[in-house]
Amino acid sequence: MYGRYTQELGAYAKEEAARLREDGALRRTTSVRGQAPELMEYEKDPCAKCQVCTSWCRKFLISRVGEDWIFLILLGLLMALVSWAMDYTIAFCQQAQKWMYGGLHNNILLQYLAWVTYPVVLITFSAGFTQILAPQAVGSGIPEMKTILRGVVLKEYLTFKTFVAKVIGLTCALGSGMPLGKEGPFVHVASLCAALLSKFMALFGGIYLVRNFLLMNELRNTEMLSAACAVGVGCCFAAPIGGVLFSIEVTSTFFAVRNYWRGFFAATFSAFIFRVLAVWNKDEETITALFKTRFRLDFPFDLQELPAFAVLGIASGFGGALFVYLNRIIVESMRKQKTINKFLLKKRLVYPAVVTLLVSTLTFPPGFGQFMAGQLTQHESLVALFDNQTWYKQGVAEEFVYSSEVPQAWKHPQVGVFITLLLFIVMKFWMSALATTMPVPCGAFMPVFLIGAAFGRLVGESMAAVFPDGIHADSTVYPIVPGAYAVVGAAALSGAVTHTVSTAVIVFELTGQISHILPVMIAVILANAVAQSLQPSLYDSIIRIQKLPYLPELGWGQEKYNIRVEDIMVRDVRYITLSSSYRDLQEALITGQLKTLALVESKGESYKISVTKVYFAKTTTTTTTNCFAHVLHTTILH
Amino acid sequence: MYGRYTQELGAYAKEEAARLREDGALRRTTSVRGQAPELMEYEKDPCAKCQVCTSWCRKFLISRVGEDWIFLILLGLLMALVSWAMDYTIAFCQQAQKWMYGGLHNNILLQYLAWVTYPVVLITFSAGFTQILAPQAVGSGIPEMKTILRGVVLKEYLTFKTFVAKVIGLTCALGSGMPLGKEGPFVHVASLCAALLSKFMALFGGIYLVRNFLLMNELRNTEMLSAACAVGVGCCFAAPIGGVLFSIEVTSTFFAVRNYWRGFFAATFSAFIFRVLAVWNKDEETITALFKTRFRLDFPFDLQELPAFAVLGIASGFGGALFVYLNRIIVESMRKQKTINKFLLKKRLVYPAVVTLLVSTLTFPPGFGQFMAGQLTQHESLVALFDNQTWYKQGVAEEFVYSSEVPQAWKHPQVGVFITLLLFIVMKFWMSALATTMPVPCGAFMPVFLIGAAFGRLVGESMAAVFPDGIHADSTVYPIVPGAYAVVGAAALSGAVTHTVSTAVIVFELTGQISHILPVMIAVILANAVAQSLQPSLYDSIIRIQKLPYLPELGWGQEKYNIRVEDIMVRDVRYITLSSSYRDLQEALITGQLKTLALVESKGESYKISVTKVYFAKTTTTTTTNCFAHVLHTTILH
Repeated sequence: MYGRYTQELGAYAKEEAARLREDGALRRTTSVRGQAPELMEYEKDPCAKCQVCTSWCRKFLISRVGEDWIFLILLGLLMALVSWAMDYTIAFCQQAQKWMYGGLHNNILLQYLAWVTYPVVLITFSAGFTQILAPQAVGSGIPEMKTILRGVVLKEYLTFKTFVAKVIGLTCALGSGMPLGKEGPFVHVASLCAALLSKFMALFGGIYLVRNFLLMNELRNTEMLSAACAVGVGCCFAAPIGGVLFSIEVTSTFFAVRNYWRGFFAATFSAFIFRVLAVWNKDEETITALFKTRFRLDFPFDLQELPAFAVLGIASGFGGALFVYLNRIIVESMRKQKTINKFLLKKRLVYPAVVTLLVSTLTFPPGFGQFMAGQLTQHESLVALFDNQTWYKQGVAEEFVYSSEVPQAWKHPQVGVFITLLLFIVMKFWMSALATTMPVPCGAFMPVFLIGAAFGRLVGESMAAVFPDGIHADSTVYPIVPGAYAVVGAAALSGAVTHTVSTAVIVFELTGQISHILPVMIAVILANAVAQSLQPSLYDSIIRIQKLPYLPELGWGQEKYNIRVEDIMVRDVRYITLSSSYRDLQEALITGQLKTLALVESKGESYKISVTKVYFAKTTTTTTTNCFAHVLHTTILH
Repeated sequence: MYGRYTQELGAYAKEEAARLREDGALRRTTSVRGQAPELMEYEKDPCAKCQVCTSWCRKFLISRVGEDWIFLILLGLLMALVSWAMDYTIAFCQQAQKWMYGGLHNNILLQYLAWVTYPVVLITFSAGFTQILAPQAVGSGIPEMKTILRGVVLKEYLTFKTFVAKVIGLTCALGSGMPLGKEGPFVHVASLCAALLSKFMALFGGIYLVRNFLLMNELRNTEMLSAACAVGVGCCFAAPIGGVLFSIEVTSTFFAVRNYWRGFFAATFSAFIFRVLAVWNKDEETITALFKTRFRLDFPFDLQELPAFAVLGIASGFGGALFVYLNRIIVESMRKQKTINKFLLKKRLVYPAVVTLLVSTLTFPPGFGQFMAGQLTQHESLVALFDNQTWYKQGVAEEFVYSSEVPQAWKHPQVGVFITLLLFIVMKFWMSALATTMPVPCGAFMPVFLIGAAFGRLVGESMAAVFPDGIHADSTVYPIVPGAYAVVGAAALSGAVTHTVSTAVIVFELTGQISHILPVMIAVILANAVAQSLQPSLYDSIIRIQKLPYLPELGWGQEKYNIRVEDIMVRDVRYITLSSSYRDLQEALITGQLKTLALVESKGESYKISVTKVYFAKTTTTTTTNCFAHVLHTTILH
């Protein structure tokens, strides 16, 4: 659950920064000495020639290709492998659950137990494992990456332990079939990968030794992490362009076009390998999109359908804002209930177990799940929602029938398809908002995307019901394609929740069709306009909930921020005045292990520490202007 | 022809900057006084209520929507109208030429005269018109926008005269059917539009009065122009996403995510209106892509075709570098030949007329043009090249035959399709490189795009000839789609020439299909890698040729730059020394209209003007480091 970091993180970041600074100074002095023995060893070594040869090879390769590009290729390769292996394991886990559930079809009680126990065990394991190994692995990771990319040092977030915890925790969490996403954590995993890879490459010398990670060259560090974020999204969805743009929108305020090219390169390579692995594994015949759609090309949509798409976009905007609000309310209400909070802090695994139990009980297919397509996994649901058929006309299939089985889950014999879709949307909405508060590695993008797709499908089916022969004026009948509405809805809702427009590009790459570009763009922009005026993005919301040491954007002065100076300021600064006695000085020196000692004129002005002429005096407790906080931030952290 | 600006521009920019600074100071003092009479008039005016009402309406609209967004909507709308009207006129001009040519089919000499005279007249008119009205309208406009976005003031580039000259000149130039493009100039036109629109909006008050264009708020100015560049590309190709990315890559080094959203919004709106106009005009049934392709969706390409795509990308990289080189060589050789240069400077219209005569003679359909599909316009050629059929199998049509007429132009009875394509590529290559040096408003993107498409088609046809049944291992036969190679080739070559990867996105939006995302991305990245290591981008090349006051990127120290301090420094700075007599001072004050007068210690140190501690002394003629030049730049221009 959020909020554990409130106190820790600020102090931690400062401590780490200080330690790293010392470390750096230390290493700088030793590195000069460090090289000499190495050179001597060269001469003594019997296989010196061999070493010289490899060293030459390395230099040749680096001079030709550039160490940078080798790094990006390795990162892409590694992440593609991780992504593919994870997808494979998750699919296997979900298959196992279905197999167990299917095998017990004689006894409904056993079936229920199997259906419920399986995810509870997996989620509890995931929560426990990450808790023990690396609590930093909990949650999405995008808020933390956003913070790190602004220059705050959160070193524990980029260690090998966190990597292991995140990958295994995420695999278990997603394997449970809960409404959780892979995309946010994957940004974190990719950044972890990049950090570890750069450490690994440092062993072989080169720029990664000199400009060691998080230590010397902040620019290179940022560049590397930006590329990593792009790779994370890119290989998660096999969407290189959308990945680059999404990671830029989510993590940056300003960015260099240089990084954009690096991101493009790495993400493309990663997406390529990710899809090639699927071909080699005979899952696919050739490289195609993940959720391929087959909408007609000759007449994708009518101009008169655009108002419907616009309404869908605006409604998604409200929905997105509501999701962010709901998510925050859940966390905050849990935190306010002190007795519950105390209990949960002690028994950290109870909360995820209870949530999982609740969600999986409600989705139990013979129970309530039958009204909301409970037996389908996220992947199956999405494939069904992007389907070409018009569901409300039962049995009437269109030209291309390629997935006739899956939509059956949506067609309950007693209940119409509209009720099923509505129930699915409402239930999944709060389930997703609740599930993403569990202390396991998980993202909210995919669940939101799915809800958006269902909502779009609902609108599309309604349109198809109202205009059974399409709304084209001419003699040709072009029926309405509800699947297209699903695509638009998915882009719009996920765009509204994350405050990005690049979800539009992601859906094009995910579905392999770009014919609905204008409806998608219009809906996404409208959804963003609505959502941005109502709520912060989900990631900004999490940053505020977790009180990460992050400073909001410098706006045009209209916004009020709720970060106070006291949240980030250093208290009880040691100082000596002009009238300090020897005793004062001695006390100051003995009590704290000081690096700096402030010198002020008089005691009354003790707040007026003159490090960078920033005056704390009167503004310590009032909400400050954003600009002021920025100066302060720089002062304290650097 | 390039190079006319060598002397003028530097001096001009400085002059303008100085004038603007004065202007600003003047306005600041008057603006306070200016408001009082206005308020008084309100009370006197009989229709004061009406004025109050409109003012209230404006305020309400602005407070709800934001002036910013109104501006972006207006800009998008305006540019869509301009783009559509221009396209319409260009198509009309080209139709007229064909009609004239077709009507004279009895007499080949008259036919030739008609075929040749028409473009010569149009191009000469275009050159003369821009020459007289606004010489700044010549050329692409992207290099100038790049310079302006770095903070150099080139005010004449953003006037109404330039707008008129650019729009009319461009329409005539493109209407002539020469291998010229619309995209580069459109970036300029959009920026002009934005500048004029902001002036217009300033009449109605609001932020555009206070933060007047190019005058007060550099940030807002940059924001506006960035959005305008995106709109320019977006409404030219109906490619909002590609437009935003392309304009970012081409014009920026760093940019704000804020601008990206604004660009997205404006470009989407613009592209939407642009395509809606086509629907209203009954050109299209609904909103679709400009060059819609219909490649098969189920098996877009085989994994084993990827090496061919990669080779295509690498070859395009070399081709792109060659194009930039050729373009530069033509300009430089013309400039070196002093007698030719003198003659051309006197008779400025001779050069474009001669070039047009040469190009149109060679494309004359009954003459040499029959071997290179000379009678097709750019648009028709592109549609044909992106075609689904495999041309080398004459008569064998594939599943979707929708454009059976156009490819006939490529099938000469005596000469095979390979020869036609090869001739087309070679001829168009040098023709485009030559034509873009003419002093008319023109871009090089579209011609290069077309050559790339032809080259891709050539590779695709060769592949189809080598593997007639496709290269898939299984029993299913998936024939190779040469049209897809054309798409990949177009993206790769235009990417190589402009050093961008967003051409990939542009082709997806232009063709309306994204199924070949991986081949396109791979080819574009490889083409960029090759081209960037061999030559600067076309726009950077033009910047260097024109000696625009632009400073190259700060690289990682490997590159050498050929901009010397003398190119941008202020010479003959007036100064007085410590030992100056009254006469010296008087002379200094009388001779020049000085704003500043440098004070140096002694005459020997006269170079050592101590404005910002930059020492000219020893570095005046040697190539300086980039960093130094940067400081200097800042000193001189601000």
